Amino acid sequence: MGVEDTAWTSLKTRICELEALEAVIQLLEWDQQTMMPPGGSAHRGVQLATISALMHDKTSDPQLGEWLGVLSDSDDPHVMAAVRNLGRSHRRAVQIPSRLVADIATASNVGFGAWMAAREANDFGQFEGALERLVSLRRDEVACQGPAAHPYDHLLEQYDPGSTTAQLQPMFARLRPELANFIDTVSSRPRPKSVSGKWAVNDQRCFSHSVISTLGFRLNDGRLDSAAHPFTVGMGRNDVRLTTHLYEDDLLGGLTGTIHEAGHGMYEQGLPADLAGTSIAAAAGMGLHESQSRFWENVIGRSLPFFEWLVPLIKQHFPDDNLSPADWYGHANRVERSLIRIQADEATYNLHIIIRFELELALLSGELSVADLPDAWNAAYRDLLGVSPDSPNDGVLQDVHWSNGLFGYFPSYTIGNLYAASFRYQMQDDVPDMWTNVADGDFGPVLAWLRDKVHRHGHSLDAPDIFRAAVGDRDPVADLMAHLNERQAALNLN
Amino acid sequence: MGVEDTAWTSLKTRICELEALEAVIQLLEWDQQTMMPPGGSAHRGVQLATISALMHDKTSDPQLGEWLGVLSDSDDPHVMAAVRNLGRSHRRAVQIPSRLVADIATASNVGFGAWMAAREANDFGQFEGALERLVSLRRDEVACQGPAAHPYDHLLEQYDPGSTTAQLQPMFARLRPELANFIDTVSSRPRPKSVSGKWAVNDQRCFSHSVISTLGFRLNDGRLDSAAHPFTVGMGRNDVRLTTHLYEDDLLGGLTGTIHEAGHGMYEQGLPADLAGTSIAAAAGMGLHESQSRFWENVIGRSLPFFEWLVPLIKQHFPDDNLSPADWYGHANRVERSLIRIQADEATYNLHIIIRFELELALLSGELSVADLPDAWNAAYRDLLGVSPDSPNDGVLQDVHWSNGLFGYFPSYTIGNLYAASFRYQMQDDVPDMWTNVADGDFGPVLAWLRDKVHRHGHSLDAPDIFRAAVGDRDPVADLMAHLNERQAALNLN
Repeated sequence: MGVEDTAWTSLKTRICELEALEAVIQLLEWDQQTMMPPGGSAHRGVQLATISALMHDKTSDPQLGEWLGVLSDSDDPHVMAAVRNLGRSHRRAVQIPSRLVADIATASNVGFGAWMAAREANDFGQFEGALERLVSLRRDEVACQGPAAHPYDHLLEQYDPGSTTAQLQPMFARLRPELANFIDTVSSRPRPKSVSGKWAVNDQRCFSHSVISTLGFRLNDGRLDSAAHPFTVGMGRNDVRLTTHLYEDDLLGGLTGTIHEAGHGMYEQGLPADLAGTSIAAAAGMGLHESQSRFWENVIGRSLPFFEWLVPLIKQHFPDDNLSPADWYGHANRVERSLIRIQADEATYNLHIIIRFELELALLSGELSVADLPDAWNAAYRDLLGVSPDSPNDGVLQDVHWSNGLFGYFPSYTIGNLYAASFRYQMQDDVPDMWTNVADGDFGPVLAWLRDKVHRHGHSLDAPDIFRAAVGDRDPVADLMAHLNERQAALNLN
Repeated sequence: MGVEDTAWTSLKTRICELEALEAVIQLLEWDQQTMMPPGGSAHRGVQLATISALMHDKTSDPQLGEWLGVLSDSDDPHVMAAVRNLGRSHRRAVQIPSRLVADIATASNVGFGAWMAAREANDFGQFEGALERLVSLRRDEVACQGPAAHPYDHLLEQYDPGSTTAQLQPMFARLRPELANFIDTVSSRPRPKSVSGKWAVNDQRCFSHSVISTLGFRLNDGRLDSAAHPFTVGMGRNDVRLTTHLYEDDLLGGLTGTIHEAGHGMYEQGLPADLAGTSIAAAAGMGLHESQSRFWENVIGRSLPFFEWLVPLIKQHFPDDNLSPADWYGHANRVERSLIRIQADEATYNLHIIIRFELELALLSGELSVADLPDAWNAAYRDLLGVSPDSPNDGVLQDVHWSNGLFGYFPSYTIGNLYAASFRYQMQDDVPDMWTNVADGDFGPVLAWLRDKVHRHGHSLDAPDIFRAAVGDRDPVADLMAHLNERQAALNLN
């Protein structure tokens, strides 16, 4: 065996271990949010810290650096992808001192507690100090990673490797006024009626299982549970766990959430099994992950053909429900100026994200101080959305992300919406019957397209390259606006 | 800091890691048997193997050996206990070659598959080769651990550190004829009536939670789920998970199983929290663990005062049930010659164990070949129990243990019954009102005694020493026979 073969064998063994440890972290977190008794928290903290420390040791290991060096000239595309993927985490693990990693973990814990207390008191002042500490630590983290085209790129890379600030800024800058105009126009028209009713939560569980398994989520290789804050974890393509939150008085609220998570789950279930142990059988980033959840939730799950298929199924599970596909379609596509991101409609949502992206850039560059953040937040909402939060809880305190030290994550949501819109139009070209299929409850062709164009690549390419290979030179900003306009035009507003 | 202090600090850090990794293994196994989708098996195998290998590396580490050496003269009882506990696992990890460990893991996997196939075909021949391999590997494992008073001691130590073959053999040899006579005598009398009925499984769940939380199992620090083969895991004293199997037509069958697991669980919940990270906040062995489960299941859970308390609770949950405490007591204390261990009554059970113990000794010493095992099994059942299996499934193929390579485990069950009987009589002396308390549903004094005499010691002492400290010079064989005779004498046989 040559030096390269030996290094590749060693690297694959290490990747296997890291993938297994990552899966263990996923299980520990899933269990914590679904099954663990309240008393288990302190034990769970130690377990998570132990596995994370082992992963850090195995990722920063100089031997790993040597293997990556030996393999850096390989022209085997799998080896190249593994070297790129592991190279990133190795570089981060080496460049960011363990002490800083521990400080960020501690500050995130403190930050989460302070945020909870501040929410309780509806008082930003109780969170300010903790947030200042977190911003300052993230600035340190960026600084110790050396030069980049833009310092924010270091944060983006953790969630969306391959995406750059230079690429996002102009896209978001175009989207900003187009969305604002769109919302102005839609707001001047009559709004579709919202629906109301009662749907027993137990029956919704059975209904949810029926919907997601028809979409293509394999229940033999996954499960669906309840959680306060829904999320999905994949511990390998044959063990993917969705969670959801159902509401007795809001069937669609629970269902769109479930479909969103099933979209994440089908991506995980479609990763290339034969490449396990190479770092490639993994999602290519959170933006692409969100494109999958949002494609199913919004492009499919809020379409009229979808409701044409769904209404008879609703009647099977809830015989008293007499709403029509048009009723549901109108309800699902109401657009309104809003204060709260997680309650926002498909269009407005992106303005919530753009505001956060711009504020993060300003905070991390030092242009904006944490003390001035609430005013900057309120001003941005007034300017862009025409609404003003009455209280910090409806404004700057609404999201958990920053309290946990997550900066650079928010853009993923809008990247996901942009990718999903272009996937829609490319899929319409490639699968001309797709909407007839959806109305028939035959989601196979839709899933097959996503499998072929997205899932099967795993992380062999970075997300922007997977996107380009799938849709050619389509313009995602134009596609997202076209998609939103089509949705509104199809509403039957009397 | 002196050399000893430094070594103790390093050792505690290592123990913390090992305890966290062990807890992770427990979670992986719990999840596998309760929650994991069927597709997850292969991933789970890799995760378990990865964590086990890390534990092996950290346990066999020469540095650990050095710390143990430095600390070997300590007279701090906590340090002494940690050195004894870690010394055992370090010695095993060093003496048993990794290759042999891996071979045993593989052979156990193969063995389990072969056993399942053999059970399916009701044909010992399909299991014979795999069992021969397992016996031979366990003999190798014993051999590489060097001399011991008895080679079987090396196997016992894994499950019951501190117990020895020399101590068990005479105890079992006394128990053997006494139990055989007891069963002869009881079998010549009329048997109490068995009860029958239907108890909805969903209502049994609620009933079970009510029973175990009254006994003293803290549901805030644990949970109860369903599993095909019930078991309990502890991931720290505040996260203890019980499982049970309920039957619509057998309320007592499910309930005694649930109480058994709750007994294990209360032991785990009573371990000394302040000694986490020292190897002492752990159970002292499987025999002592079984003493706790069997004490609650049999001593308490099959007693007349228990049923006096239970019957009103049964009526709350199952208003149609009109059985009296005496009906349940009779049903719960029927003794009969049986073929199947897990269906055996409290008395006969121990004969099933003694047979297995004697066969294991013969197999591992080489006196008995695997080919001759079925005949030896059948002969032992005929001699000791007066029954003969019609088929391998009701005989030598009935237990999963050997197929998984578990040799040396069976004695734990009878050790548990022996300890539990002496605990009963000592507790009656120490807590004179105990049976009145039980009839009143006040289990606090019983649990307090177990906490004080057993749980709080963790693994600071080995189980035989904890037992002796609790009961002085009581004779567990005499106590077990006295307990069984009292139970029968109190039956109202008309």
